[in-house]
Amino acid sequence: MFLEAIHHRANDQYLYAKDAETIHIMLETKANDIKKVELIYADPYHFQGNQWQYSQREMYKSGSTSLLDYWKITVEPEFRRLRYGFRCIDINDNEIIYTEKGFFNRVPTDINSYFCFPYIHAVDLFKEPEWVKDTVWYQIFPDRFANGDSTINPESTLPWGSEEPSQTNIFGGDFQGIIDHLDYLVELGINGIYMTPIFKAYSNHKYDTIDYFEIDPQFGDKETFRKLIKECHDRGIKVMLDAVFNHSGYYFEPFQDVIKNQESSPFKDWFHIWNYPIKTEGYPNYDAFGFVASMPKLNTANQKVKEYLLDVGKYWVEEFDIDGWRLDVANEVDHTFWREFRKAVKEIKKDVYILGEIWHDAIKWLQGDQFDAVMNYPFTKSAVDYFATQKMDSTEFMDSITKVLHMYPQNVNEVSFNLLGSHDTARVLTMANNNKERLKLLFLFQFSFIGSPCIYYGDEIGMDGGGDPGCRKCMVWNEEEQDKEMFEFVRTLIQLRRDVPAFGNLSNFQFIKAEGNVVIYSKMKGNQELHFIINNSHLQTNITLEHLSNCTVKDIFSNEVEKLDNKAILKLNAFGYKCFQKI
Amino acid sequence: MFLEAIHHRANDQYLYAKDAETIHIMLETKANDIKKVELIYADPYHFQGNQWQYSQREMYKSGSTSLLDYWKITVEPEFRRLRYGFRCIDINDNEIIYTEKGFFNRVPTDINSYFCFPYIHAVDLFKEPEWVKDTVWYQIFPDRFANGDSTINPESTLPWGSEEPSQTNIFGGDFQGIIDHLDYLVELGINGIYMTPIFKAYSNHKYDTIDYFEIDPQFGDKETFRKLIKECHDRGIKVMLDAVFNHSGYYFEPFQDVIKNQESSPFKDWFHIWNYPIKTEGYPNYDAFGFVASMPKLNTANQKVKEYLLDVGKYWVEEFDIDGWRLDVANEVDHTFWREFRKAVKEIKKDVYILGEIWHDAIKWLQGDQFDAVMNYPFTKSAVDYFATQKMDSTEFMDSITKVLHMYPQNVNEVSFNLLGSHDTARVLTMANNNKERLKLLFLFQFSFIGSPCIYYGDEIGMDGGGDPGCRKCMVWNEEEQDKEMFEFVRTLIQLRRDVPAFGNLSNFQFIKAEGNVVIYSKMKGNQELHFIINNSHLQTNITLEHLSNCTVKDIFSNEVEKLDNKAILKLNAFGYKCFQKI
Repeated sequence: MFLEAIHHRANDQYLYAKDAETIHIMLETKANDIKKVELIYADPYHFQGNQWQYSQREMYKSGSTSLLDYWKITVEPEFRRLRYGFRCIDINDNEIIYTEKGFFNRVPTDINSYFCFPYIHAVDLFKEPEWVKDTVWYQIFPDRFANGDSTINPESTLPWGSEEPSQTNIFGGDFQGIIDHLDYLVELGINGIYMTPIFKAYSNHKYDTIDYFEIDPQFGDKETFRKLIKECHDRGIKVMLDAVFNHSGYYFEPFQDVIKNQESSPFKDWFHIWNYPIKTEGYPNYDAFGFVASMPKLNTANQKVKEYLLDVGKYWVEEFDIDGWRLDVANEVDHTFWREFRKAVKEIKKDVYILGEIWHDAIKWLQGDQFDAVMNYPFTKSAVDYFATQKMDSTEFMDSITKVLHMYPQNVNEVSFNLLGSHDTARVLTMANNNKERLKLLFLFQFSFIGSPCIYYGDEIGMDGGGDPGCRKCMVWNEEEQDKEMFEFVRTLIQLRRDVPAFGNLSNFQFIKAEGNVVIYSKMKGNQELHFIINNSHLQTNITLEHLSNCTVKDIFSNEVEKLDNKAILKLNAFGYKCFQKI
Repeated sequence: MFLEAIHHRANDQYLYAKDAETIHIMLETKANDIKKVELIYADPYHFQGNQWQYSQREMYKSGSTSLLDYWKITVEPEFRRLRYGFRCIDINDNEIIYTEKGFFNRVPTDINSYFCFPYIHAVDLFKEPEWVKDTVWYQIFPDRFANGDSTINPESTLPWGSEEPSQTNIFGGDFQGIIDHLDYLVELGINGIYMTPIFKAYSNHKYDTIDYFEIDPQFGDKETFRKLIKECHDRGIKVMLDAVFNHSGYYFEPFQDVIKNQESSPFKDWFHIWNYPIKTEGYPNYDAFGFVASMPKLNTANQKVKEYLLDVGKYWVEEFDIDGWRLDVANEVDHTFWREFRKAVKEIKKDVYILGEIWHDAIKWLQGDQFDAVMNYPFTKSAVDYFATQKMDSTEFMDSITKVLHMYPQNVNEVSFNLLGSHDTARVLTMANNNKERLKLLFLFQFSFIGSPCIYYGDEIGMDGGGDPGCRKCMVWNEEEQDKEMFEFVRTLIQLRRDVPAFGNLSNFQFIKAEGNVVIYSKMKGNQELHFIINNSHLQTNITLEHLSNCTVKDIFSNEVEKLDNKAILKLNAFGYKCFQKI
């Protein structure tokens, strides 16, 4: 038995309360080493004489990578307290008891040996917003979605789509443009809009804020914004804004004051300035986003800055009833600030969605006291590297997605923000080398995964574009230039997600196998069991579906029912896919 | 290479900021599998063209168990940001790069593959109180330490030491008694007193509080308490009190009100009551400490309860200038409460020591936002099981202490509360089967370990006693009954801890070997290097000190200097020990 690889700790995704009654426990072991794991558990105070009165229950294998097996179990302890350990039986029938104090040949009698969940406190629970679980997002880069009010066009506005996007050009997209096209979004089926920044800023992307309390005039005014929110809410669409609290823009008044008054500026402690005079050309002599002098890092530990930004956070929720905050460069802002931010905005609207932009492992922000979720870039990377660029083979894909599924508590996974691309990455169609079949597989995987998927504007009609700024083209509204088939495909996926419980979120995702260029996974919810079979290759292939041998299945896309024979061989065309419901 | 056993995550003891400039990183690998680990690291934004400009530096092996090797490194990143991965070279010269995205044969070019410490924020740092690092604690159970004022004896007070301790008897120990014996404690050398509860309560142990704002009259009044604090502070002794916030006593007024008025009591939400009428005989129908009806669990999520207890926390710091709070059954109280508690008491006195009673892995409470440390029972168990009861062999001891050293960040370890026993355990002498030689080894180990050691009153003069209530005998003040030699031994150890920098805290502890019944460890600080050689057996033994071959060493206890020869064989008597300083 490979004891070195048996891993559990009483925190993070390994142990947490899913809700006020329910504890989730996870164990990792070396792949293919352990054949059975039982949880040994009981209330910490449940004794008869000196004997702790424990129970035992088998855990289930929730996933495997090339290196590790993952085991899970759910417990609802009567008195909300739990001590527990693991009985591991390996493939040679050797047995060992794993506890916090290490490995034992027999069940330890000392209660202090065991792992502990001391008491489930409702107040400590991870409370994710329920509505996000049913949300399909649509990301809008406001300057490029639609120009609905030419009277507010900035002087330099170019005719819609007349040029390739550059770092500086402006096309006049605005709130009225979004309002004008809400019915398009309703037809697509989305019910959440995430907009990149809309506050007064200098650049076309608006990530260099000048005034956090003002709408950038190129998008409209507060009344139009209020109207946009109302029109969205009337259609059941939630709205999430982008908050850039890590740094301000160069023209942010407090920073301008420091440039002007240097050390005697009352705002000098709003930033992290190393020495004077401050140097805004080349490498700055103050902390910045990266080394970008025009984006000075805000000192979020300063009481005044904190109050200012918390007021911003509250203002747009309270005054405009927005539904979520996406937090830019969230990992570089202090945890203390985010704890106060959560408290402040959730006091106003308890189910505001707080979404951090964190590209790496974000477990430190996902303890229930800071964010509800993060932008799921590990998901993005796996999906894109497998289906679009084909840098990953099927096994690597299965491994990496299994890791994604086992890195955070389920509460987080259920409201995870699953994007394929954004204003920060090349468009998926371009990454897929303009192969629309691959793009379809990407969408199929995204929409059949758990969490809440997000479409980057235009991907659904087959827009292309390289990395920033190429991915920020004007939305194509000329129907003849839109890929209607892709639109229809995405619309169907969103519909299936709604209509077929096991297809979408809150169902159990598990890989069945990865073989050659084929990957097979199941989705289960209640009695409903779906099997996805995907041929990620330009070659036709035959796949043996041992697990569906002699089963009757319904093709979810065609609604055709067929009885598979003993061999259960499925022929899939190049980039073909099936979703079978076992009936 | 055993990839399954290579473990790191960007949190907990694996990655943290020791201070505003310094990051500590730790990696685990399978024991004896990897011969060299290098950190690959740089600022996340340090690029030339598309190439991330990383550095490499070798990590050091900080400890090993039978299963795992631990590797550490300290980095001081210029811009307080860090991306990093690990280059592991195994004993067969195979090489692999380990990053957040898994294992690679070559150094990955994608910055997003790496682990990340996004930015060191001073406000998020773990801020342990500096004074605790130099503190030697002495735990007093007030009813049993000394009776200094017979005029306040409760009616049932028994003559000092006239009976064996029982669950209910009272001996009249009080504050004046402590004041009277402060010079004894100064002579011993301690500089911190931890008192079990002193607030108005029903029992002799006072863990069943009646009034958190009142001193129990059997100990004295507030004026005497104020005098006690002053007398302690005048002698450089800190004072820590015991807060029982998980539950109240049966006679706590709000609970009495609920008993009287049942569901119509305004205090009904101060507790967790399942149904009415409440049942205080046998198994209670409300949450309690364990299933003890007389200790109803407090609802610390209730705003009024929270305010009441936070006021308690602040009151004794603000009004009486106490230096620490030891928090009883701290693991069963919610994290939200403890975060507010820390904020509240540290606002009044920023270096108050917050010590949780948690017997199991407490990493969730040791993130800098709740406790400074926990009672180090994992240390206790290893030390007692090895030196006192000899349930553990040398290898198990080395493994378990190595685990203790690697389970929390260094900030925590430096203020860890290292006890050998308490009012909750049998006395160490009794556990050592009354073998005083073994007790000496226990003390030697405790005082040469890192963290802050605590002596349970009377252990230093050889008092004995079984589990509660046996361990709560009256302190022996008759000098003829005191073990003067033990006292002198402990006094010497405390002195050495003060005088010899590498002997005590803030030095580097590392096992050299465990062989038979002998254990050898080194302590290092700056250029000072100590070697402890301990024979934990009743048989004389010869030990080869390869690591000191041909060295000149000074015996720290006798001050004798000797030159060891090539073989460096040391003869140790039964339960013998040496502490050699390499010179």
